[in-house]
Order: sequence, then structure tokens, then C-alpha cells
Amino acid sequence: MMEKFFYPKSVAVIGASHEERKIGHVVFKNLLEKFKGKVYPINPKTEPILGQKVYPSVLDVEEEIDLAIITVNALIVPKVLEECGKKGIKNVVIISSGFSETGSLEGKKAEEKIKEIAKTYGIRIIGPNTIGIFNSENGLDATFFLEKDVRKPSKGNVSLFSQSGTVGILSLDILTKEAIGIAKLVSYGNAADINESDLIEYFSQDEKTKVIAGFIESVRNGKKFLEVLKKNKKPIVLLKGGKTSFGARATSSHTSSLAGDYKVYSNIFKQFNVIEAETWDDLIDYLKILSIGKKANGKRLAIITNAGGFGVLASDFAYKIGLELPEPSEKLKEELKKYLPFYASVRNPIDITADADVERYKNVLKVVDESKEFDLLLVIILIQTPMLDEKLFEVLNEIKKPFAVCMNGSKADEIRKKIDKSIPIYDSPERAVKALKILTELKS
Amino acid sequence: MMEKFFYPKSVAVIGASHEERKIGHVVFKNLLEKFKGKVYPINPKTEPILGQKVYPSVLDVEEEIDLAIITVNALIVPKVLEECGKKGIKNVVIISSGFSETGSLEGKKAEEKIKEIAKTYGIRIIGPNTIGIFNSENGLDATFFLEKDVRKPSKGNVSLFSQSGTVGILSLDILTKEAIGIAKLVSYGNAADINESDLIEYFSQDEKTKVIAGFIESVRNGKKFLEVLKKNKKPIVLLKGGKTSFGARATSSHTSSLAGDYKVYSNIFKQFNVIEAETWDDLIDYLKILSIGKKANGKRLAIITNAGGFGVLASDFAYKIGLELPEPSEKLKEELKKYLPFYASVRNPIDITADADVERYKNVLKVVDESKEFDLLLVIILIQTPMLDEKLFEVLNEIKKPFAVCMNGSKADEIRKKIDKSIPIYDSPERAVKALKILTELKS
Repeated sequence: MMEKFFYPKSVAVIGASHEERKIGHVVFKNLLEKFKGKVYPINPKTEPILGQKVYPSVLDVEEEIDLAIITVNALIVPKVLEECGKKGIKNVVIISSGFSETGSLEGKKAEEKIKEIAKTYGIRIIGPNTIGIFNSENGLDATFFLEKDVRKPSKGNVSLFSQSGTVGILSLDILTKEAIGIAKLVSYGNAADINESDLIEYFSQDEKTKVIAGFIESVRNGKKFLEVLKKNKKPIVLLKGGKTSFGARATSSHTSSLAGDYKVYSNIFKQFNVIEAETWDDLIDYLKILSIGKKANGKRLAIITNAGGFGVLASDFAYKIGLELPEPSEKLKEELKKYLPFYASVRNPIDITADADVERYKNVLKVVDESKEFDLLLVIILIQTPMLDEKLFEVLNEIKKPFAVCMNGSKADEIRKKIDKSIPIYDSPERAVKALKILTELKS
Repeated sequence: MMEKFFYPKSVAVIGASHEERKIGHVVFKNLLEKFKGKVYPINPKTEPILGQKVYPSVLDVEEEIDLAIITVNALIVPKVLEECGKKGIKNVVIISSGFSETGSLEGKKAEEKIKEIAKTYGIRIIGPNTIGIFNSENGLDATFFLEKDVRKPSKGNVSLFSQSGTVGILSLDILTKEAIGIAKLVSYGNAADINESDLIEYFSQDEKTKVIAGFIESVRNGKKFLEVLKKNKKPIVLLKGGKTSFGARATSSHTSSLAGDYKVYSNIFKQFNVIEAETWDDLIDYLKILSIGKKANGKRLAIITNAGGFGVLASDFAYKIGLELPEPSEKLKEELKKYLPFYASVRNPIDITADADVERYKNVLKVVDESKEFDLLLVIILIQTPMLDEKLFEVLNEIKKPFAVCMNGSKADEIRKKIDKSIPIYDSPERAVKALKILTELKS
């Protein structure tokens, strides 16, 4: 049922336009340029758009259409949806806004109307009031943002759904910026039909999805929500908006659903191993490590650093959030000392000092990685020293234990553009430690 | 007494070297290229360095020397320090390491020795074991990092001191990256003489310093610390390392001082209006807003957003940390509605919706800024929409109330490079809100 939303052979863009600023133009352009399938522009004014033949209605297309993206004015949505039904299209994304999210009676009625039509024809709907959907695998970029404004992520294993369209589009951009690859993204807006539970269910079975992420404001079907969470075996991170009366006021104003009682959510999250992101940064930080990392077998963290101060901050924070920082055994200390100057510290944080070169990192990392005394590694890199360059990242790629890297600054940013995505890099010691903690909370 | 550390007329670099990788070379090069005063390279091998005449000892320089930077091997430090004394130099920065921070008895003895010499000649010392000092005003860059590795901040009003040298150097780089200007920076290392209290005292009187920041691990002179905090009238942000046994283990290993009881610190911070940064990100975030912002007269926050989801997250977080988010009065709502489409929300978060253009932001911001119903503004900008461009920042520059901006993504990063530094911009709604809160905690 959901498959054709993401793997259609053909897509119709209803409301495709030749006016560059119109949503119907951008969606069509994105699909035409990237989608590996057939794209039909639909518009009663049948002038060609971007050189493509235009059809007045989906009914005028002779071939089969798997998916329709509707971008027309809310008032016309019922008419074109009905045509989709007649054409036998079972999967429709309604980008158009002007429905229940307006808070108006007319808006609510209009949404009821499209639900009715969908029911009559057996159509499944994503939307209305969404920024669209995205599948990195087949170039299905049915969003109304151009790459010049919003960079689109490369292929990856994170699938994300968002009730808020703006959070959806920000996710695409920020995940790209942070070098986190995406499998699929869905902005599901008013959830007139498909809701958060349907999407969790689909992603939990989708083989391209390794990590599920969602921004939710409220849950439509509590029973189904619990069921799908119970069945899900993949890491899932949820960011809940509208936890407080302030936030709820905002959600009710913009998606016309009241935010539920946060305590109830919080308990459900704990019960079903949902990783709760407390903030936007948490969401991004957790996705970064989950998309690369693996489950940690315990909470014993080793910190290797060439920057004493950052080692201290990481240690304090690790303690605060419940990680362990065991001192190396005497045997391990002796092993480490072989590769370190006398003024280094082998106590954990293992301070290999600011004059550490790539070779010193390599030797120490190897000893710690092979040791059974630790489950997780944090590697802090003051990349600003003249002793270090990109070669260090070849060394990091060889680490077998779950790990994260903390480095920051102008030179760090330059290097990040060049190196492999398989290294989870964080700007601050505390954020790196917090992300590592998540790996200790994964089930199975 | 401290003035000549930052405003010397002449500086000697003892241990200046022609070997490019040596600390004595880099410090000399940085000063030669940027310092607006006389710089004397000192080295017994008197070949010219970077075309400059070299002196075997400070005693061979005929002119007066205000400040000496010592970069020689720890074993030679007593000899050259003695020569400084004889030359009448009263201000010395000892970059050299190999003293008490090594944890060795020899190191401790060596440090006692230099203290003795300093006392004999009335020399004030910063260090040993520091990365140096920096004054943006006169190009006094006495650090051993080149701009190609560590970008140096532009002139600003933040003065920072750090016990940890690596935190010191990271600060220079990251503050530059975040477009926060610096007045002065001091890495004070082992604090054989000048310590955190001396530096707070100096910065609290320095007219170029508006905001004081420090990374401390332990306090040397508790009584003086309390005295200087009591007298200080400027905003001061402190990040404490070694709050926990884990962190303390790290500090004792790398600066040879035991971390004090964190609760004691925490109480002192509260009592003397010290803004405590809990994490590295907090430190940077707070400095950004303090260097630009002004005291808020109350806790009433208005959130203006074109991104519903981020408005929700900001609202939840504002509530969590104790800010107020009053609904606008009916009168104010009517005023706002004049400039907004019917589907916008005027409840606060004021959701001006994703189709907002620069004009809509301008009108709404003006109304909110002039209203007496709010003390602080958060402006959330989904810059990814095609409706917005850099012109929006001219509008932001006109805001009179204390405010912060949240925007993120690739286009946001491009714009940030171009716009004025006088706008405090944050990547996430929560970090922006947390920074704004600080403005409500400033005294007088």
C-alpha cells in the first residue's frame, strides 16, 4: 500500500506550472531532473512546461499513473482528487494547504470532503499541507524546494517523518550539511489519512531504512502507535513538539491538533525503547551516530585526547549522564606508556598531549580499541596543532569499537568537507558524549 | 602592573628560532607581522631570523624591553628569567612547559625556582605552560599558532582567560568561526604567579573589555577570587572543568591542581552573579549574545517565526527554562493581524507562516519591538524559502529590544558569512532561547 508512494513507476504533478515561483513548477522540475521514472505534468492550460507535453487532466494520460502530487489551490483539490480516483491512482500526496490547519470551519469541511473522496475511490493520502516526500534511492524529490535553496541529502539509511513541513525541509538541509545520508523523508502535514503510525510501520519494514526518526506534535491513533512501536526492531528517535502549554498553543495554531499529555508520551517512549531527542540538536546528533554507529555492549567509555581542557569537559559530562570512565588496568597503562611521553596521562581521559602526531594517535587508539576494558571511545582532536592532518582520519576509520570524534574550528570544518562520512564528528565534547550514550541504550 | 602584558612598547621573544616548526619561531613570526611595536628576537645563535637582527641575550638589547615571551627549554628558563630580571623586564610570559604540570618532582622544583627568581627581581609571570597571550587591539599575538591553523578573531569586547592552553587556542579559533570579536585572551597555564583572580580583576577594569569569560579548573586564592567577583560590574561567564571525580582526575593529570568541590563553586557563582556555562556550547552561545546584546528588563519573550515546528520547539524550551511567553493583548493582536494573512497565528509564537516575505517580517517585528508587552524577541527564520534573502538582515538590525535569531542550513551559512556581526544567530531554537535567558539574569 505504501510502496507506491516511494517506488512509483510514474508520477503526475497536478498543478504543474511554468511560473518559476509556483510550487507546481518546482515540484515538477525537481522530479523531471532527478526521478528515474515517467513524470506527467497536469494543467488545464496545456502549454509545454520545461519542454514537456502537458495534459489537461490525469484522465488524459493513457499510461498508468502510480502516484499523483497535488499542488493546486485548495478549492480545486476535490475535483482533481476525484479525477485521480477515476484514473485508478491509489497514492496521492496533497501538498496544497488551506485545510484544517487554517483553523477555519471551511478548512475543516474541505478536509472532510477530500477524506470522503479518498474513501470512495480507495485512495491513500499523504497530507494535505505538506512540503512533500523524498526518496534518495530513485530521485523521487517531490518537494517544492530547489537545491539552490535547500541542499538535498545523499543516499543513506535514515528515514524521517515530520508533521511540520518546515521541520521536514530543515531536516533535508541540515542533515545534508551534517553529512548524514537519508533513505526517505515524508512531511505528512494534517495527516488526513496516513499518520505517524503508518509511517513508523512502513519504515520498520523498509529494507533501506536502518534508523527511523520523527518529529511529532500529536498522535492520531494511540492504539496503533503502541502496536507499531512494539513491533519495530529498529532504532527510532522521536522529537516531540508541544510538550508544554506554550508549545501546545503553537501546535494547535499551526496543525489544528491538540498536543497530548507529555508525560504519557514520555512513558510510552521509555516503555518501547524510543530514543527521545530533547532538542533539535539532539535529533541531529543522535541520527548522526545511529546512522554510522553500532550498539555498545556496555557503558565503559575511554576518552583519548590531545586537548586537556576538552578531556576534562568530556569527563565531567560523561559522569553527569551516567557513563563510566574506568581507569585502565596497570597492564593496559604499561602498554599505553610504550607509545607516550612521560608527561602524558594514562588515567582516562588518556591525555596524549598537544604534541601528539598521527602515529601516536594510531598506537594509542589501537591499544584501547583492542582492550576489553572499554565499550566506547571518544577521540578528541585539537586539529589546530601542526602535528596533525587528514591522515589521522585513515586511522580513525580502522577503529572497531563504537566511537565518536570531537573536533572544532576553522581547520576542522575544512577537513570535514574532505573526509569520509563514516566518522561521526561533533563540535563539542558534551554533544559527542551525549551521542555516544545513545549507543548504550539500543536494544538487541 | 598588568598593563604592560597587553600594551608593551617592546617585546623580546626569548628562544626565537629560524626553525619553522619551533614555538620560538611561530611566536616571533606572529609578533613581527602584526604587533604595532618593537620586537626583539633573542637566541645565542645570532643568525638573523626572518631578516631581523638577533640578540644573544636580553642584556644585549640597548633599548628598554617591556615584555618578554620565553619559549626555551624548561632547563634554560631560570637562566633567561634571571637575565630578564637584570634587564629590568617586569612582565614575562613563560610558554615553556616541563614544570609542575608534568606531575614530576623535578617539574615542581623547577617551578619553585622560577617563582623565586621572579620574586627576587619583582617580575610578574603569566605561565608557565601556556599557549601565550593575545590582544586584538595592537596585534600582540604572542601565541604559537599560525593563522593557517588557527584563525585569529577580530577586535571585539570579550576578554577570555583559560587555565587550559588547548581551550585557549580553541577559543580563538571557534570565536572567530562564530564571528565573536575578542579584546584580549590569556592562557595562564600553571599560574605560578598570575592566576584567574588577577585576570578577572584586570579585565573588570579594562575599558576594552565588556564581557569577561573564563575556563577554570581550580581557584588558587579563594579569598581574592571572592573579592574580585564582588567588585566586578561586568557580565562574567565561567566554565568550570573538573566538576566531578572523573573531570578532576583529568585536571590533576594535566595541570597539577586538584579540582575543588563543585558545589562550593556553584554557590559562589550564584552569589556573585557569575553566569555559569554548563557546557562548551553554552560558553560560546552566551558570549555571542553578551558581546552584542543588552540586559533584558523582564522575562516576557515573543517568538516570531515562519517555521511552525521550530516555533513549537522554541516555546517548549522557553517554558522549560523559565521564560514567559505571554499571549499578545487583543489590541496587539489586531495590530498584528493588519500585516498577516488569515491563516497566520498571533498567539505567540507568532507564526507568520512559510510564505512570509521581508516586508511581512519587517511589519510584524516593528509592532512587537514597539510593544510594551514583551522584553525579548526570538526571530526564527526558515531562510530556505524563496521569499527571503539578505535584505531581511537590514530589518533585524533595526530591532531595539534584546533579541536573538535562529536559522540553520546551507543557505543560512552562506548568508552568515556576508552579514553584520551585530546579529546573534543560533543554529537551533533551543540554543537561541537559552542564550536569550542569560540577558534576563544580568545585574544592573
